[in-house]
Amino acid sequence: MKVAWAGSREAFQLSDRMAKLVANDPAFEKFTRPMLGRKELLKNTLRKAAHGWKLIVDLRLTEEEAKWLRLFIDEPAYTDLHWGMFIPAIEGQGTEEQKNKWLPLAQKMQIIGCYAQTELGHGSNVQGLETTATFDPQTDEFIIDSPTLTSSKWWPGGLGKVSNHAVVYARLIVGGKFHGVHGFIVQLRSLDDHSPLPGVTVGDIGMKFGNGAYNTMDNGVLRFDHVRIPRNQMLMRVTQVTKEGKVVQSDVPRQLIYGTMVYVRQTIVADASKALSRAVCIATRYSAVRRQFGSRNGGPETQVIDYKTQQSRLFPLLASAYAFRFVGEWLKWLYMDVKQRLAVNDFSTLPEAHACTAGLKSLTTSVTADGIEECRKLCGGHGYLVSSGLPELFAVYIPACTYEGDNVVLLLQVARFLVKTVSELGYKKPVGTTAYMGRVASLMQNNCAVQTAEGWLNPGAVMEAFESRAARMAVRCGQRLAKYENPEEGFAELSADLVEASVAHCQLIIVSKFIEKLQQDIPGKGVKQTLEVLCYVYALFLLHKHQGDFLATGYVTPKQASLANDQLRTLYSKVRPNAIALVDSFNYTDHYLGSILGRYDGNVYPKLYEAAWKDPLNDSDIVDGFHEYVQPILKQKLRTSKL
Amino acid sequence: MKVAWAGSREAFQLSDRMAKLVANDPAFEKFTRPMLGRKELLKNTLRKAAHGWKLIVDLRLTEEEAKWLRLFIDEPAYTDLHWGMFIPAIEGQGTEEQKNKWLPLAQKMQIIGCYAQTELGHGSNVQGLETTATFDPQTDEFIIDSPTLTSSKWWPGGLGKVSNHAVVYARLIVGGKFHGVHGFIVQLRSLDDHSPLPGVTVGDIGMKFGNGAYNTMDNGVLRFDHVRIPRNQMLMRVTQVTKEGKVVQSDVPRQLIYGTMVYVRQTIVADASKALSRAVCIATRYSAVRRQFGSRNGGPETQVIDYKTQQSRLFPLLASAYAFRFVGEWLKWLYMDVKQRLAVNDFSTLPEAHACTAGLKSLTTSVTADGIEECRKLCGGHGYLVSSGLPELFAVYIPACTYEGDNVVLLLQVARFLVKTVSELGYKKPVGTTAYMGRVASLMQNNCAVQTAEGWLNPGAVMEAFESRAARMAVRCGQRLAKYENPEEGFAELSADLVEASVAHCQLIIVSKFIEKLQQDIPGKGVKQTLEVLCYVYALFLLHKHQGDFLATGYVTPKQASLANDQLRTLYSKVRPNAIALVDSFNYTDHYLGSILGRYDGNVYPKLYEAAWKDPLNDSDIVDGFHEYVQPILKQKLRTSKL
Repeated sequence: MKVAWAGSREAFQLSDRMAKLVANDPAFEKFTRPMLGRKELLKNTLRKAAHGWKLIVDLRLTEEEAKWLRLFIDEPAYTDLHWGMFIPAIEGQGTEEQKNKWLPLAQKMQIIGCYAQTELGHGSNVQGLETTATFDPQTDEFIIDSPTLTSSKWWPGGLGKVSNHAVVYARLIVGGKFHGVHGFIVQLRSLDDHSPLPGVTVGDIGMKFGNGAYNTMDNGVLRFDHVRIPRNQMLMRVTQVTKEGKVVQSDVPRQLIYGTMVYVRQTIVADASKALSRAVCIATRYSAVRRQFGSRNGGPETQVIDYKTQQSRLFPLLASAYAFRFVGEWLKWLYMDVKQRLAVNDFSTLPEAHACTAGLKSLTTSVTADGIEECRKLCGGHGYLVSSGLPELFAVYIPACTYEGDNVVLLLQVARFLVKTVSELGYKKPVGTTAYMGRVASLMQNNCAVQTAEGWLNPGAVMEAFESRAARMAVRCGQRLAKYENPEEGFAELSADLVEASVAHCQLIIVSKFIEKLQQDIPGKGVKQTLEVLCYVYALFLLHKHQGDFLATGYVTPKQASLANDQLRTLYSKVRPNAIALVDSFNYTDHYLGSILGRYDGNVYPKLYEAAWKDPLNDSDIVDGFHEYVQPILKQKLRTSKL
Repeated sequence: MKVAWAGSREAFQLSDRMAKLVANDPAFEKFTRPMLGRKELLKNTLRKAAHGWKLIVDLRLTEEEAKWLRLFIDEPAYTDLHWGMFIPAIEGQGTEEQKNKWLPLAQKMQIIGCYAQTELGHGSNVQGLETTATFDPQTDEFIIDSPTLTSSKWWPGGLGKVSNHAVVYARLIVGGKFHGVHGFIVQLRSLDDHSPLPGVTVGDIGMKFGNGAYNTMDNGVLRFDHVRIPRNQMLMRVTQVTKEGKVVQSDVPRQLIYGTMVYVRQTIVADASKALSRAVCIATRYSAVRRQFGSRNGGPETQVIDYKTQQSRLFPLLASAYAFRFVGEWLKWLYMDVKQRLAVNDFSTLPEAHACTAGLKSLTTSVTADGIEECRKLCGGHGYLVSSGLPELFAVYIPACTYEGDNVVLLLQVARFLVKTVSELGYKKPVGTTAYMGRVASLMQNNCAVQTAEGWLNPGAVMEAFESRAARMAVRCGQRLAKYENPEEGFAELSADLVEASVAHCQLIIVSKFIEKLQQDIPGKGVKQTLEVLCYVYALFLLHKHQGDFLATGYVTPKQASLANDQLRTLYSKVRPNAIALVDSFNYTDHYLGSILGRYDGNVYPKLYEAAWKDPLNDSDIVDGFHEYVQPILKQKLRTSKL
């Protein structure tokens, strides 16, 4: 199962090696993190980042190994943006000349960069950004400026304190005319003494959710007061501005940008399965350690993992972690496919791939965020302790629901694509994940044939149920939209329902990719059978949760829905004996999990007790402030005491 | 509307006065809280608590006023447990003699106490507590002992650093025999120098979720090594141990303890409406300030509150805040009613009142916890900043889902009561909130008669829909349970479905109390009409969300469910013009809200910008750690530098 989770034996060995490298290096200790003040916290992160970079250089790690190393260090840092956004932006949007100049500097970290897109007043609406880049033909320069308070760049990670360069997105103004939003390489700080350059105001935006969490990152604020940069620092792969002030489009297809989006979102889906599996691993292991109620004749109490209420909340999340893992694997393939097609100017699958990744990004991150919090609740009171690892995991994860496209905005994009697909059914064959729409006539007509609980253990029955529900919801939305004279008005009015149709479509994709995975050869004794159980748990849990959709569209009867729910209970009993093995297969080190409740050895209570005494409040019996603020109350001398 | 929210003109004036008293006193400033280290944080809390107590004494505030004052100080502190648990435990479980001795000391705060029930190994299962209190007739003392690591008291607020006394729950052992779990007043620390008494090990359990949040509280760990206390420090109102070692039950009914539970849970429901309304107030105001997309001809962009996707997530929470407020008000009445009945030994309504409060505690706290996080997401990226107030509100609120009964465990208690009620229908008339079960025959038969979207704007139609759904789900559970030979086994197996039936019952209670409220006289122009809209939003949102239940039980058709959803959209348009007024009616000061996004004056962006510069990281241009850990990377001198 470990190999099935990792994707291949090689992938397993690589990540295992990197995980152990980090776990065994005391430089990456993270227990004290939540107790540090903001300054100490950032300093500590800078230290770890430097140590990590030293290892990468000293051990000559490959790019792939370096990625896993940074992942296991498990602390958001400026390096994430430097490697994950600054360099890719130059790679994707820079000309050959620009790449030759900037990439070597960045790859050796002689310069450190970030990605300055969002502003105080604009996040989702990139076209609404206010920062300006005005071409001055006299000096062959752009003047970068922040004309309003709301145009202040806001949120970019690594910007606040560390980066000396940034790719800045701004409105291109040439000859007094607006030519769209483009990226510009701007130096922010001196390479000598790191002080901000003239005209640049830069700082940190302050504390964020959680104790350590994302506070290890210097998310920044940035204002420009007419800062000048040479013309050749506009990223010009797609659009060029000539010396003479002409704006020229190159023959590079603009769609390239969507290829990058597919890539980034694919990594976000992969991260979702990692975060969710960590939380599930903690909650599952602790649920086997924790006992409560049910003692018979003074014997031990029942392990909480044996309660059906616990199973019905935990096991669907375990199944989701696997489902997201496999759909993430498939997205990796999709990205390669899109890349190959783009290379030969084939854009035919791009809209579908774009909608599909947008939807999957939205769905997996939302479920993961909620799932982490659910796992925390499944750990009862002790889950609230930072030493459970779950509060930090939650706080550090939730931005994924907002960055790279707000999850609701993304689902509306999916809905737009679905409605379009439906409206074109007469003359355009739907492709890829929407191919099922081609069978819309039968999907609208046929009804579910399941007659027993066992009847649901059939990939065909499950697929048809999810396809019918998704197709019917999309068609119904299309019909209702058609009643509006102004389609945009209709779209706005029905947007909440459109979002539900998108969710149905995206769930279908995940279910179908899980089923496809099981049609492949999967080595390891009993591995395939165990994964089959999880696949049905995932599908039937969704069927029960969204029973309203399935019943409202008329595809299943109440009786059939009830049979699915009965089968779900049986499936939980099948998951139970394998639950611990299934989370051990994630192969997470105790260091990476960062949770006393989720310790591999199960030695929870003694370690919780031990950890408590390390809190700074326990440095002394009498706490700071007792003499000033409590003693006078006890002695009834508050009136005369100074507060 | 302000009066309707507060409950009465007097209640409004009282809380308004206390809110302003706190907001205008710089001693209660809370902006810097998330930036403090743990020691500074607790010291700051002790200072505020002392200042608050000084105000209470100096201004001779009534008990009611003092409660509001502590609420508006808005910082969990040892005083919450002293006043809210330690004193009430003695009041409820102490004999007259014990009350005469201990209450005056506690009420003047000459002693400070906490409530030590939960242990490292036991939370929900109180009967499984391991701490022992063994009677020693030789010395007329109890020996309090922690025989195992898991018997360590764990979580009690105020225990770690401040309290010098505790009500400790322990297994009473007399003559080698176990006589149940009882409360004992135990002194923990010296009243002279505050050092722990011999045999007492006490400390703080460490950091919890969030930056400030509950870390202002010294939740504690406590172990006893054969600590002796006089016999008369066992709380003996219900059970007495005589000098001779006889265990005697007094004629005080044991049911009294349920009266206290009803009281405590009633306050938790009231707190839920406060926490949810704070979050909703922030998200609503910010949704009116924030604009994104939809600019026409260069005009301003659309306020995000005008998007239907925003409304469909925000307005049901706004309606829930009001619904919880009114059901909380009704619970206050219920508690008075129970108290009066107990006084005349009428226990007939107790099981129903107990089930009802357990269910409402569970439902309102779960919805509130999720609702706060939803409000944070509705604020987009900026909601992730601590200065939005929402991360702290979430982190400080979520324990409510666990304390005073884990929410799932409570719903199972409700289910047990529902199933019992159903099984006794033939010969026992259901009372109170289960009275509708008396009409079970017609509720099982009649189907929904609604034919238009407007048809749903009818209290009778709404009530019957919720009653039918709840009754049918409960009956169905009963029928399925009857198929099991061993009822306990059946209950365990079907527990996930039983929880769903409980939720249906509890939602019905809230809907019905909202409707009852609207049948009363409500002063103020248009107030009643506005509340009616909210009431329908609340009910029809639930109907849509739980469409699966309504369809599966066969009471509504897909067409009728769809009409309800259409009506819901119309209702959102009716809420929109009143949305700001509805949240202003909560009458929260900017101090209490503690949110830049939720500022009354809407001056969000300049204040966010201003606040950023107050982060400690912005004290200097060059951050701590730059020279050691970043400069060597940039200068390519990492190899020779010390890390």
